Amino acid sequence: MVRMVDIGGKSEVERISVASGRIKLKKSTIDAIREGNIRKGDVLSCAEIAAILAVKRTPDIIPLCHPINIENVSVSFHMDDDAITAEVTVKSTGKTGVEMEALHGVSTALLTIWDMVKGEEKDESGNYPHTFIENIRVERKEKRELSETLQSPSAIPSQSASSHHSQHCIP
Amino acid sequence: MVRMVDIGGKSEVERISVASGRIKLKKSTIDAIREGNIRKGDVLSCAEIAAILAVKRTPDIIPLCHPINIENVSVSFHMDDDAITAEVTVKSTGKTGVEMEALHGVSTALLTIWDMVKGEEKDESGNYPHTFIENIRVERKEKRELSETLQSPSAIPSQSASSHHSQHCIP
Amino acid sequence: MVRMVDIGGKSEVERISVASGRIKLKKSTIDAIREGNIRKGDVLSCAEIAAILAVKRTPDIIPLCHPINIENVSVSFHMDDDAITAEVTVKSTGKTGVEMEALHGVSTALLTIWDMVKGEEKDESGNYPHTFIENIRVERKEKRELSETLQSPSAIPSQSASSHHSQHCIP
Amino acid sequence: MVRMVDIGGKSEVERISVASGRIKLKKSTIDAIREGNIRKGDVLSCAEIAAILAVKRTPDIIPLCHPINIENVSVSFHMDDDAITAEVTVKSTGKTGVEMEALHGVSTALLTIWDMVKGEEKDESGNYPHTFIENIRVERKEKRELSETLQSPSAIPSQSASSHHSQHCIP
Amino acid sequence: MVRMVDIGGKSEVERISVASGRIKLKKSTIDAIREGNIRKGDVLSCAEIAAILAVKRTPDIIPLCHPINIENVSVSFHMDDDAITAEVTVKSTGKTGVEMEALHGVSTALLTIWDMVKGEEKDESGNYPHTFIENIRVERKEKRELSETLQSPSAIPSQSASSHHSQHCIP
Amino acid sequence: MVRMVDIGGKSEVERISVASGRIKLKKSTIDAIREGNIRKGDVLSCAEIAAILAVKRTPDIIPLCHPINIENVSVSFHMDDDAITAEVTVKSTGKTGVEMEALHGVSTALLTIWDMVKGEEKDESGNYPHTFIENIRVERKEKRELSETLQSPSAIPSQSASSHHSQHCIP
Repeated sequence: MVRMVDIGGKSEVERISVASGRIKLKKSTIDAIREGNIRKGDVLSCAEIAAILAVKRTPDIIPLCHPINIENVSVSFHMDDDAITAEVTVKSTGKTGVEMEALHGVSTALLTIWDMVKGEEKDESGNYPHTFIENIRVERKEKRELSETLQSPSAIPSQSASSHHSQHCIP
Repeated sequence: MVRMVDIGGKSEVERISVASGRIKLKKSTIDAIREGNIRKGDVLSCAEIAAILAVKRTPDIIPLCHPINIENVSVSFHMDDDAITAEVTVKSTGKTGVEMEALHGVSTALLTIWDMVKGEEKDESGNYPHTFIENIRVERKEKRELSETLQSPSAIPSQSASSHHSQHCIP
Repeated sequence: MVRMVDIGGKSEVERISVASGRIKLKKSTIDAIREGNIRKGDVLSCAEIAAILAVKRTPDIIPLCHPINIENVSVSFHMDDDAITAEVTVKSTGKTGVEMEALHGVSTALLTIWDMVKGEEKDESGNYPHTFIENIRVERKEKRELSETLQSPSAIPSQSASSHHSQHCIP
Repeated sequence: MVRMVDIGGKSEVERISVASGRIKLKKSTIDAIREGNIRKGDVLSCAEIAAILAVKRTPDIIPLCHPINIENVSVSFHMDDDAITAEVTVKSTGKTGVEMEALHGVSTALLTIWDMVKGEEKDESGNYPHTFIENIRVERKEKRELSETLQSPSAIPSQSASSHHSQHCIP
Repeated sequence: MVRMVDIGGKSEVERISVASGRIKLKKSTIDAIREGNIRKGDVLSCAEIAAILAVKRTPDIIPLCHPINIENVSVSFHMDDDAITAEVTVKSTGKTGVEMEALHGVSTALLTIWDMVKGEEKDESGNYPHTFIENIRVERKEKRELSETLQSPSAIPSQSASSHHSQHCIP
Repeated sequence: MVRMVDIGGKSEVERISVASGRIKLKKSTIDAIREGNIRKGDVLSCAEIAAILAVKRTPDIIPLCHPINIENVSVSFHMDDDAITAEVTVKSTGKTGVEMEALHGVSTALLTIWDMVKGEEKDESGNYPHTFIENIRVERKEKRELSETLQSPSAIPSQSASSHHSQHCIP
C-alpha cells in the first residue's frame, strides 16, 4: 500500500526546480535537425510544447503527486554533436516542491524528440541501436519564503515579488 | 520557441471574464430545437455541460495557459431565428485572467451544438453548406482586489466577498 | 440547465471528508485475494492507486465539481468473508468540501476491485450473479478554520498547522 | 504486481453490456427533482452526460482496462419515491467485454446525481444521513459473432449489421 | 436527454474531413508574428501542436463524439494583413465521420493563437476590442470504401492504400 | 511546423515493443525498498500501475503519436545494489509501432520510483546528488502479419492467434 505525503501543514512558499536530461542521437540526425531536414518537422518546438503540457499534467501521471498551481515553466535545449540536452525550470507558489514536475517535463521533451526523429534513427530492422536517453537529474531546487508584505498585496506592488533574492533552500 | 508568462509576482485578485460566440443554423433546425425534435436530444443541456467541463480543462488544451482555481462558470444561450448565441462567464481568484477559459467554454458550447444537430444540418452529400461559427469574442473582463478583510477570513464573514462592487479593470 | 455553486465568497478552510463503500464477492474470491491467487495480480494495491488518481481527477468527471488543491488522500480496505469495504479520506484547504472527491475515490476503488477479479467472479455465461457494489456513503466531514497565525507562515512554524484540533463542522 | 489480460488473440465480436445501480435520496429531494426545483438545476441531464463521457474514459480510470472503440452508450433513469435507478448500456465491436465501461457509467451517473442534490440532501451539520448508493451490478452481457459477410463490407450493405440476432453469450 | 448515434452497423471506410476558421487580429500583431516579435514566442508552432493534440482528444470534450482511430492530422495557416486562417485536415478509417475532430482542431488552433498574442491584442483596460474568431466551417468531407484488396493486407502491398482515388462522398 | 505520419495506408499487423531504463539510487534506498521500509509505501506496485496507465495515455502526451488499441502491457523490474531497471512490453494490433508507448511506460515507471523514494534520496538541502535516470532504450520490436485465417475469426478458434511465431521485423 502507499502513503501520500500530507502537505496540509506546510507553508506556502515560492518553489523553483530545475531538471535536465539528454538524448543520444546519430550525428546525422543532429545535422538534419540543425538544417531543418527532419521529415516530421520542427523537433524542438514540438518537444518544448509537449514538455510544458506534461509539466501541468504531472499529478495525472505520477500517482502520489499533488495537484499544484504552476506559475511558470521554461524549457531550453542544448545541442551537441551527437546529443540534445533538455532543461526544464518549473516555478510554483505552494506547499510542496516541483522537482517531479520538472523531471516529467524533461522526460517528455526527450521522448518527444525521439518520436520526432524515429525515421532518422531507425535502422533497417526498425530498431534503434544508437538512441537512448540518459542522465535525467534534478539540477537544483530553490525555495523562497513569501515575506509578510506579499501576504498583503494591496500594500506593496506585487511586481516586487519577482525580484531575484532567491536562496538555495532547506526543503 | 515559446515563453509562458511568469505569474509568480502577480497578486491574487478576483477575476471575471465573459465571452460569447454564435453558431448559424438552418431555420428548420432552430425550430426543431425549440420543439424538442432533434434526433440526438437536448442540444442546449449537452452544450452547457460540455462548456463547463471544457472551462475546467483549458490548461490541458491551450499550451501556455496556467492551471487556475475556477470558482464559478455559468453558461447561457440566446436563440434567434437562424442562430444560437452562447455566453460563458468564468470567475476565479488568482494571479491571471480567465478570458481563455471563457473563450474555450464558448467554443466548446458551439461545437457541441453543431455535433448535436449534425443530422439536421447536413445536406445529401454529408456537407454543411449553411452551418458556421462566428463572432467568438471577449465581452468583458473584471478584476477586483481582495480587501484586507478578506485576508483574515475569521474576522469578517466570508459572504461579504460576494458583494457586487466590481469595477472594470486594468489587467 | 445547470447552476454551479459560486464558491468565490467562501473562506479557505481545512476540509476533510471520509467516504466508504462495499463490494460483495464470492467467498472463494476473497480467499484467493487473501492467498495472492488472483490471476490479474494484487487487487488492493491496484485499487488503492486507482482511487488516489481518481480523487485528483474528480472535476474532470463530475461536471459541477470545482478544481481544488488536494493535500492528502488515504485509502484503506477491510476484508470480510464475502465482501471488501473501501474507505477513502480526502483533505484539502479550500473554499468547498471534498465529499465528492472521497466518494469518487471509493467508487473507483470498488470498480477496480471488480475489474481485478472478473475472472474469479464470472459464471460460465460471463455474467456476475454474485457481484455487486453497495452502501457507498459519506462517513463524516470535518472543517477547521485556519487560524490567523497560519496566515503569516514566517511567524509560526508551519508544522503546527497539522495539530489535531479539528471539529465536526457546519459546512 | 498486476497482469493485464492479453486480448491480442481474441476475435473481434460485437459486445453489449448493461449495468445498473441506485441512489437513495430523501423523498423531498425526489419531489424537488420531479418539480424542477433543485438549486443546481437539471439533475438527470447532467448525470446522463457525465455518464457518457465517463464510459469513454474508463481505461484512464480503471488501470487494467483496455482502450476500446465504443459504438454506442445509452443511459436511462427510473425514479422511485425515495431513489433513482440508473441503467447504462454500452456497445462495442472488439476483443474484450464492456462491463467495466457500463459499470463506470452507472457509478458516474449516481455520483453526479449526488453532487447535484447536495444542497437538498445535507443535514445542518453538512453530512448526508440519508444518502447512499447501492446495488451497482451488471444486468447482462451479450456477444454476437461478426459474420463473414461483415468482413467484406463492400459485398453486403453494412446496415444489415444492425439486425437483431444477438444471443446471450459465452464470453 | 440525449441519444448517441449507434455506429455499430456502419462499415469501416476511410474518411477525411477538412475544416477551417479565422481569427481577426490587429495589423500590428500580424506584423509582429511575421517578424518573430511576439512576446510569448512562436505563435503558429504552438497553435499547430495544440490543434493536433485537441483533434485526438475530441471525444473527451464533445460529449456524444465516438472515440476513433485518427490516422493523420495536418494543420496549415494562411496569414492576411489582419487575420490568420487555420485549416485542419483529419483522416481516419472507421465507422463515423471526422468533421467534429477537424472543427475541434480548428477552434483549438485559433484559441491558441489568441492566447499567444494576448499581450499584443489587449487594450489598456485589458479588453480585446479588435480580436474575434469567425467563419469556422467544414470545408469538405470525403469517404472512400476500403476495397477488398485492403482487407487482405498480405496479398497487396499496403502502400497502395494511399493512392488518391478518393471520391466526394455520400456519408 | 510538424508533419504527423499518415498511417492510413499501412496494414494492420500485430506489433510488440520492449523498452527499458534504469534509475540509480542510494544503496540504502534499495535496502529500504527490499525491506519494505519506504515511507511512501510500495514503490514497485505504484510504478507498475503508473506505467500501465501512462502507456495508454501516450498520444495525449507525445504530440504526433497516433491513438492505438493497446492489447497488452507488462512491466517488470530488476533490482541491483544501487539501481532499479524497469522493462515495459507493449502489444498492439494496428497500423503503427508501439515503441513510444513502451518508452513512455518505462519513463513513467522510473519517475514514479523517484517520487516514491524522494524522502530517502534527498540530502539535507533537499537536492538529489545521487539520483538519476539513465539508459532508456528500445530493447526490441517485433511485427507479425495477421494470417488470412485471422481475418475470418469464425473459421479458426481465435486462441490460435496467440501462437508464438513472431519474427523480428522490418517495420
